[in-house]
Amino acid sequence: MSRLFMFEKPLGMRDTLPELYEKKYRVRAHLAETFKLWGYQFIETPTLEYYETVGAASAIHDAQLFKLLDKEGHTLVLRPEMTTPIARVAASKLLQEDLPVRLAYSANVFRAQQREGGRPAEFEQIGIECVNENTVSCDGEVIALLISSLKKAGLEKFQVSIGHVGFAQELFVQILGTNGRATALRKFLYEKNYVGYREHVQALNLSSIDKQRLLQLLQLRGGEEVLSSAADIIENGQGKKAINELKELWEVIKDYGYVDHVKFDFSIASHMSYYSGILYEVYAGNVGFPIGNGGRYSLIEKFGKNASAAGFAVRLDMLLEALGGGQLENDTHCIFFSQERRGEAFIAARKMREQGQKVVLQDINGVNSLDAFTKKFAETSFLIGGRSNE
Amino acid sequence: MSRLFMFEKPLGMRDTLPELYEKKYRVRAHLAETFKLWGYQFIETPTLEYYETVGAASAIHDAQLFKLLDKEGHTLVLRPEMTTPIARVAASKLLQEDLPVRLAYSANVFRAQQREGGRPAEFEQIGIECVNENTVSCDGEVIALLISSLKKAGLEKFQVSIGHVGFAQELFVQILGTNGRATALRKFLYEKNYVGYREHVQALNLSSIDKQRLLQLLQLRGGEEVLSSAADIIENGQGKKAINELKELWEVIKDYGYVDHVKFDFSIASHMSYYSGILYEVYAGNVGFPIGNGGRYSLIEKFGKNASAAGFAVRLDMLLEALGGGQLENDTHCIFFSQERRGEAFIAARKMREQGQKVVLQDINGVNSLDAFTKKFAETSFLIGGRSNE
Repeated sequence: MSRLFMFEKPLGMRDTLPELYEKKYRVRAHLAETFKLWGYQFIETPTLEYYETVGAASAIHDAQLFKLLDKEGHTLVLRPEMTTPIARVAASKLLQEDLPVRLAYSANVFRAQQREGGRPAEFEQIGIECVNENTVSCDGEVIALLISSLKKAGLEKFQVSIGHVGFAQELFVQILGTNGRATALRKFLYEKNYVGYREHVQALNLSSIDKQRLLQLLQLRGGEEVLSSAADIIENGQGKKAINELKELWEVIKDYGYVDHVKFDFSIASHMSYYSGILYEVYAGNVGFPIGNGGRYSLIEKFGKNASAAGFAVRLDMLLEALGGGQLENDTHCIFFSQERRGEAFIAARKMREQGQKVVLQDINGVNSLDAFTKKFAETSFLIGGRSNE
Repeated sequence: MSRLFMFEKPLGMRDTLPELYEKKYRVRAHLAETFKLWGYQFIETPTLEYYETVGAASAIHDAQLFKLLDKEGHTLVLRPEMTTPIARVAASKLLQEDLPVRLAYSANVFRAQQREGGRPAEFEQIGIECVNENTVSCDGEVIALLISSLKKAGLEKFQVSIGHVGFAQELFVQILGTNGRATALRKFLYEKNYVGYREHVQALNLSSIDKQRLLQLLQLRGGEEVLSSAADIIENGQGKKAINELKELWEVIKDYGYVDHVKFDFSIASHMSYYSGILYEVYAGNVGFPIGNGGRYSLIEKFGKNASAAGFAVRLDMLLEALGGGQLENDTHCIFFSQERRGEAFIAARKMREQGQKVVLQDINGVNSLDAFTKKFAETSFLIGGRSNE
């Protein structure tokens, strides 16, 4: 164990300096404002939860959890995502009346990094959960809100790729017989290792027709027309049910006027085991990672309530990367004052602030390098020495 | 170790439900907006820091730190306050030019509780730090900003009690001879155990005059006039310097127009060992705990930069308690729709949201108890079944 340099931070931990902070603040405000206009209410949950409850119910890998022990010997975790804590709150406090509940959050979540790879171990997710509402209208609402809030934040080029957990699952069971044998294929899908998927399929002891059906899954990408291609490779049952849900979803999103931002992609899968229906990922510009994702899930059952829910989370850092954009304008004024004209300076600053102008009041004796300090501001004024005659 | 009920949260951890969340949001916004208008820039630091750096530099008791081990065997802490992380950031990144830096933050901090006593183990602090600025004007600015932002948040009755680390310290050294012997007295002060202080003083082997001087310290509370009483019990040196600083501070606060909100209290002390000059606490209404505190400190030296700073932190939960206030108005509209009029409902909702109206869109098939759900909203409308003729 080496001695630490005094400025060091733990692996994956970052400081957010003023410029980036302000950008995050503005983007977060656009999203949050949209969520509120759609009737979603923000809640906050603790940073620390019990491993035995929220930690165990969460689908995040154990190795990615930050763990600590409390004084009673219970293991605590830093929340790795927000859906599970919200499921806990909903089940324990908000579902007594068996009504739909629309919740929102913006919170930092924590995922331990194994080694330095430039990935953050703490990052902000902002999202919503529509709890105890099981209609496809609700799935559509959640996707429409995702699109509406991203547009409000200024994002122009992005796409929501929509799949369905039930389709691939049914296809795999129909062809492979057991769910267990499907696990390897599913893993290739959520790792987006399509080469690996193809090789694995080719190596399976299956008829060429069945191999073709499995390979066909990767081709099921596009608009409404993909749904009939999907119907061609699946037999009755859950697979057809999935297609019908997606058909209805398309109609709902069309009514919202947002079909230009969505496409189907039947190869979408998730390592989050709690997803139970429609699920999706958002891609934007050149960001090589989804800036958000969501879907329908049955997680709340783990907390003793029989309630389905749908929600999404946007990664604020990824969204900022997608938005790009230059430096923010410096709009702060600085009034330098000396003791003789202090009162005058305070009054001037107050008036400007009342107009919404940012003003720094700076005692001229508190600055060593006046030139360098002046450069920090859009404008400066000086109220120094004896009062002027004007 | 007992088995946990699935809804349990770690000791001192709390959920913030929508009503309280919204109240916190509004109050935070008032404070943050004021900080920005005064030219303070927000930054964010990681939730986790190294114990060896920030944990050790912080003045929070070791037993109150949440600790965990990282994979290299270093101890990490959940930040127990924000002044030390900001000192780290300032020293490492923001003081290259040797200029004043005005920073702000709103962040949750963590203090482990030994047993259930209703105290939160995670709570939000919102505050500012004016770094590398050593004038009394700066101390005054920080106090004026504290007052201005609390007024903006709607707080009416509150008082900033101002003391000075240097005064009591000098008095104790003059009378007791060594700093070491002063420790017990200082502890009584920051625990606000004035009975214990008096008994301890009476038991000391001192002249009655010196005892009187030590007891007099507790009486030094009030306006400007207290400064001359203070001068009466101290000899030359640091004590007089402290009085002169407070005299100048009073003039600065007078120029801000805020003397009605301040008084002097020479008995104020802090367990935070890094305070080095003026320090203060804010009391409001019937809240039996300071809602905020601040002062001048020399903490940044621990990170290798010779820079003095002044700042304050407000505890958002305490401020909310001081503000009191009733329930927030429910201002959300709900449009119930059926599939036939879905498109119509979406257009209606969009128009209302564009006017700033919060609207929930609810598929009538997604609600079991329509009556109970209707009661959740300020207004409802129904777009259901065949289109009406109007």
